[in-house]
Amino acid sequence: MRISEMSSAEFAEAVKKGPVVILPFGAVEAHGAHLPLGTDAIQPLAVAEEVAKRTGCLIAPLVAYGQHSSTKRMAGTIGVRMETLKALTIDLVDSFYFHGVRKIVLLTGHAGTIHMAALKSAAEELVWKYEDLRLMVLTDYDYAYRMNDEICGGEEDGHGGIIETSRIMALRPDLVKKKRKKGRSIGPNFMVVRDPQRFYPDNFVGDARKATAEKGKKVNDFVVDRLTEAIEKNFGD
Amino acid sequence: MRISEMSSAEFAEAVKKGPVVILPFGAVEAHGAHLPLGTDAIQPLAVAEEVAKRTGCLIAPLVAYGQHSSTKRMAGTIGVRMETLKALTIDLVDSFYFHGVRKIVLLTGHAGTIHMAALKSAAEELVWKYEDLRLMVLTDYDYAYRMNDEICGGEEDGHGGIIETSRIMALRPDLVKKKRKKGRSIGPNFMVVRDPQRFYPDNFVGDARKATAEKGKKVNDFVVDRLTEAIEKNFGD
Amino acid sequence: MRISEMSSAEFAEAVKKGPVVILPFGAVEAHGAHLPLGTDAIQPLAVAEEVAKRTGCLIAPLVAYGQHSSTKRMAGTIGVRMETLKALTIDLVDSFYFHGVRKIVLLTGHAGTIHMAALKSAAEELVWKYEDLRLMVLTDYDYAYRMNDEICGGEEDGHGGIIETSRIMALRPDLVKKKRKKGRSIGPNFMVVRDPQRFYPDNFVGDARKATAEKGKKVNDFVVDRLTEAIEKNFGD
Amino acid sequence: MRISEMSSAEFAEAVKKGPVVILPFGAVEAHGAHLPLGTDAIQPLAVAEEVAKRTGCLIAPLVAYGQHSSTKRMAGTIGVRMETLKALTIDLVDSFYFHGVRKIVLLTGHAGTIHMAALKSAAEELVWKYEDLRLMVLTDYDYAYRMNDEICGGEEDGHGGIIETSRIMALRPDLVKKKRKKGRSIGPNFMVVRDPQRFYPDNFVGDARKATAEKGKKVNDFVVDRLTEAIEKNFGD
Amino acid sequence: MRISEMSSAEFAEAVKKGPVVILPFGAVEAHGAHLPLGTDAIQPLAVAEEVAKRTGCLIAPLVAYGQHSSTKRMAGTIGVRMETLKALTIDLVDSFYFHGVRKIVLLTGHAGTIHMAALKSAAEELVWKYEDLRLMVLTDYDYAYRMNDEICGGEEDGHGGIIETSRIMALRPDLVKKKRKKGRSIGPNFMVVRDPQRFYPDNFVGDARKATAEKGKKVNDFVVDRLTEAIEKNFGD
Amino acid sequence: MRISEMSSAEFAEAVKKGPVVILPFGAVEAHGAHLPLGTDAIQPLAVAEEVAKRTGCLIAPLVAYGQHSSTKRMAGTIGVRMETLKALTIDLVDSFYFHGVRKIVLLTGHAGTIHMAALKSAAEELVWKYEDLRLMVLTDYDYAYRMNDEICGGEEDGHGGIIETSRIMALRPDLVKKKRKKGRSIGPNFMVVRDPQRFYPDNFVGDARKATAEKGKKVNDFVVDRLTEAIEKNFGD
Repeated sequence: MRISEMSSAEFAEAVKKGPVVILPFGAVEAHGAHLPLGTDAIQPLAVAEEVAKRTGCLIAPLVAYGQHSSTKRMAGTIGVRMETLKALTIDLVDSFYFHGVRKIVLLTGHAGTIHMAALKSAAEELVWKYEDLRLMVLTDYDYAYRMNDEICGGEEDGHGGIIETSRIMALRPDLVKKKRKKGRSIGPNFMVVRDPQRFYPDNFVGDARKATAEKGKKVNDFVVDRLTEAIEKNFGD
Repeated sequence: MRISEMSSAEFAEAVKKGPVVILPFGAVEAHGAHLPLGTDAIQPLAVAEEVAKRTGCLIAPLVAYGQHSSTKRMAGTIGVRMETLKALTIDLVDSFYFHGVRKIVLLTGHAGTIHMAALKSAAEELVWKYEDLRLMVLTDYDYAYRMNDEICGGEEDGHGGIIETSRIMALRPDLVKKKRKKGRSIGPNFMVVRDPQRFYPDNFVGDARKATAEKGKKVNDFVVDRLTEAIEKNFGD
Repeated sequence: MRISEMSSAEFAEAVKKGPVVILPFGAVEAHGAHLPLGTDAIQPLAVAEEVAKRTGCLIAPLVAYGQHSSTKRMAGTIGVRMETLKALTIDLVDSFYFHGVRKIVLLTGHAGTIHMAALKSAAEELVWKYEDLRLMVLTDYDYAYRMNDEICGGEEDGHGGIIETSRIMALRPDLVKKKRKKGRSIGPNFMVVRDPQRFYPDNFVGDARKATAEKGKKVNDFVVDRLTEAIEKNFGD
Repeated sequence: MRISEMSSAEFAEAVKKGPVVILPFGAVEAHGAHLPLGTDAIQPLAVAEEVAKRTGCLIAPLVAYGQHSSTKRMAGTIGVRMETLKALTIDLVDSFYFHGVRKIVLLTGHAGTIHMAALKSAAEELVWKYEDLRLMVLTDYDYAYRMNDEICGGEEDGHGGIIETSRIMALRPDLVKKKRKKGRSIGPNFMVVRDPQRFYPDNFVGDARKATAEKGKKVNDFVVDRLTEAIEKNFGD
Repeated sequence: MRISEMSSAEFAEAVKKGPVVILPFGAVEAHGAHLPLGTDAIQPLAVAEEVAKRTGCLIAPLVAYGQHSSTKRMAGTIGVRMETLKALTIDLVDSFYFHGVRKIVLLTGHAGTIHMAALKSAAEELVWKYEDLRLMVLTDYDYAYRMNDEICGGEEDGHGGIIETSRIMALRPDLVKKKRKKGRSIGPNFMVVRDPQRFYPDNFVGDARKATAEKGKKVNDFVVDRLTEAIEKNFGD
Repeated sequence: MRISEMSSAEFAEAVKKGPVVILPFGAVEAHGAHLPLGTDAIQPLAVAEEVAKRTGCLIAPLVAYGQHSSTKRMAGTIGVRMETLKALTIDLVDSFYFHGVRKIVLLTGHAGTIHMAALKSAAEELVWKYEDLRLMVLTDYDYAYRMNDEICGGEEDGHGGIIETSRIMALRPDLVKKKRKKGRSIGPNFMVVRDPQRFYPDNFVGDARKATAEKGKKVNDFVVDRLTEAIEKNFGD
């Protein structure tokens, strides 16, 4: 299931069956004082593991670094440029395609605008190059935020907020700090600035005090259910 | 006011006053059978002209081509790659900066995800390069869609729909076809495909029959008001 | 005739007839104190409109910015790098080709050495990529300067001089200043320098006092005649 | 110690002490039928963990993919281009540098010629850009192969051979197949070919039957000792 | 005088005197049936040697390959892309600048439009980067064609014609074929085509039968005289 | 035999016979105080000439500049970036391939790690692009260092040392200084630094006093013999 643990021969065998490969993208990004820098890696990896159990997908090793804008200058955000992320995505899909894989899910835990555009732009070039490649691109937050009303009761929630904190509490409670607060955001009013962190004085957005492992489990299950359905629908023959 | 109509000496004089320059980005893109390909150029140009009258901004010549994803394969969509759009944006702002301009608005009529990411990514690099550059990046649809409830009454509306058709009816009624219909969209379910137009069988989304010049004028005025305010707030000293 | 004013369906219809598309390139460039910065856009656009009337060509929206060398540091010259101009040209022709256009004229009002090389280099790659693409690349000054003897009587004339001033006087008299002088150039003796404007102390070359709208009309007509002939010869089947 | 598990605030605190950051590079590469594809990730990660315990280094998340030449077409080798690997390395070090890190070790488990050149070329540009950056670049095989005589008794050993198999047996015995054989290599005689795997008919080189966990532990300890010494020598003030 | 023949220490010593370095660019290009492919290398090398004798310039090793357009598909034309030539030029001047050279002449025997634009575009970036760099860019044909009236008596002459053949006869008579003819050119009428050699059916232009070593010597002397003067004027303090 | 001395027609004729083309790469690089900067060009050119005599290979003009790392900051090392060298190599092989050449030897006198990786990476892309291209990539030092025991008697020898000095003494005795010494190297311990020349305080490595023309001739002959054999084996049908 984990490609890194398969031998060359086992991989060759698995590919013959026309598997879906999930290529997970994480990030090293500031998520307030209460969440670990690897928050965006923990989530898609957990989702991928669970989805793989249900669907028989293969899981490729994590792309551990993403592209960051608003959090770029916050301590601990280690990222790459849009161009690099796009090139990396293209190279990896090229390589999987060469070895016979035709169904790929790019699943990213980080969901920044430019980060997503890098993946999508790579994907557009790839499907144009390979006629029989079937490619799905999403962040698990495309699903997770659908739970916003249920989990947050209409309250504003975002990066490192109730949903994200809850999800990490369900997955890696040891990495979530007990002391949490509410994170504010200040509208940048469409200005692109050198120090965008000033619009996020707490490095996260939402009332992290209201996060619980139970809420997190609910969201994680929801994401796994939706992604399982989508993979079956999109890649079922 | 229009840079293309100023002489070199007039431009030099104008720059001494620390003006805001609006750099408008249009597109050549299919917008259903009822709207012209240049729809996304008409809107920001009209907005820029009106805002310039109120604020004394200078208007740079239009960047006439943008980046397109879902409409890319529809007849008449003529676009550029993300990388090219980013390079172009960087070059132009570099050039304005060299000549002394420090306040720039990148105002785009087209609002595709990758298109916007190209502008934002360019903007991030530019403000990092130039400490005293003040840069605003937006699509006029960042404002226009705020009128969605008022104009569309909660109905789904999008590319080439009620709002966009109405706006063009207010600005260039000669270019809007009388015969209009309702455009449907089909969810791509996160698949990136070679033929994304199949998710937009009508080449637009929304009930274009409900568009009127009055609605368009209302939206256009709203956009001009908001942008005027934002420019005054962001660039006022 | 103007692609930006056509609907998607009208464009699709027009392409079926195998049309010639003129893609005009302008510039934002200092042309002395008497001419507008958009001088190089006004000329090819006017030529394209007239040629289109005679030949049925389609006109694509203007590429408003070019590459500049000697005038780069003069107030108001807003340009792009050679690489960007080349990428833009390739992308646009790629896009037209995708949509079925096979006959394209790249018509540029600006005629700088590196600017022209960018267009030609793009064109060479494009015709190599597409076997059935027929591509013409020229500046309207390839024709206009053939009138040098007749219009200038053997006098040195160049950027912003008698011919160019006359042409703008014929097209946009409102944008030409009454007060004009003679512009000198100083040979750079093959040196490439940081401040090439010092070789053009007046920002233009030629005796602009001798310009008249009549001379301009003569040149404009000559250019239109020649380009009409060339298009008929090059693209006629 | 693991950056991905630290919060933003903890990272900021740690950086104040002037830490060494180890950035590990792995690979997804065919290593015969007896070793997992992730072999080159397991080794530097284990080394990094142990060295970090001894020296207080921080460990950055793994770069999971490398550049491959001779094994590129063997089943399961998933890699990136030289340019992408170089860009990624530059971006990551840029990012660490921005956040105050001045001492970095690029430690790669994969040791291909072009792969190493990508890291070194990136490193050369980075030290030229940042005067106070101290950068160490090596593969753990720079040390491991020094054990060749002791471990292999003079026998030819290489990719996936005695030393590498032994090391994985010591670290992840569950991932090493019991059935192993001797891998041959055929000299390419300086030819660069489309199918370089033909020069490695077994996908690895060396007598993997002679591998033992004890030998592996010995090599792993040796590598940890040497790297610990080198880090103390190179980065001690 | 020839940098390739100096030791490191001798070069260091020579640089202290603030020398002019001539960096010669040749080409491998079809020049009709009568001239060698290396024609464009022979000329600037001979000019450089003679100018160096008179002025004390240093001569860098030849860049042996250039960019070609109209002759690109003729047998034996071996060239590089515009981008590569530009990158190479930038790298080499960067390198000379790093080692203390401040006065450089890029002297090219090949004079194609795009080739020249690559050198000039590189030069513009370089002088912008280095404030005290003095850079001259020319082809020896900038001078040689000034002899056109005297040598060719007003007859059309071009690539591989009277002047070029004469020059090679003066320099390397052993490489010029006795049997020569007149080469015609056919106007491409601004079309950029896949097979531009069809516009030059003889692979050269001009009446090569009228070439003589005497004419060649006259041109070569003229070029050397002019370049010597220009170097003294441009780089004299 | 030398392509630069052939006419277009002669080249076309030669290509019909399916020749091997040797493309030699030199360098301009500090080699201690006793050797010329062009040392790395002299060697492969001499080898190529002799091999061509024996095998009928064609010799392309020298690529005179390479990529340098450890010697980069030593006086007189004039080099290019890895990317430029790779692009140049690709362009040249593309060009030879276009003209019908299918057997190419990239023979480099300089053997730096990144330099070699640039050539190999280019070669890998080229053989992937052209199915029937047969490409050999090596430095003459791949052979020359096999003589180490015989020539140096087990003594450490490297860049500019006994073997290299001897070879130049055999080929260009006029360019080798009489006064020579022993060059030391200091281990960089895997650090990549701004001033790598500090690890080579003499700009070369080995006891150059022990060099003789006889030793050089022996090495040169050995290299020619081995390369002749390899070309016959690799390219013989």
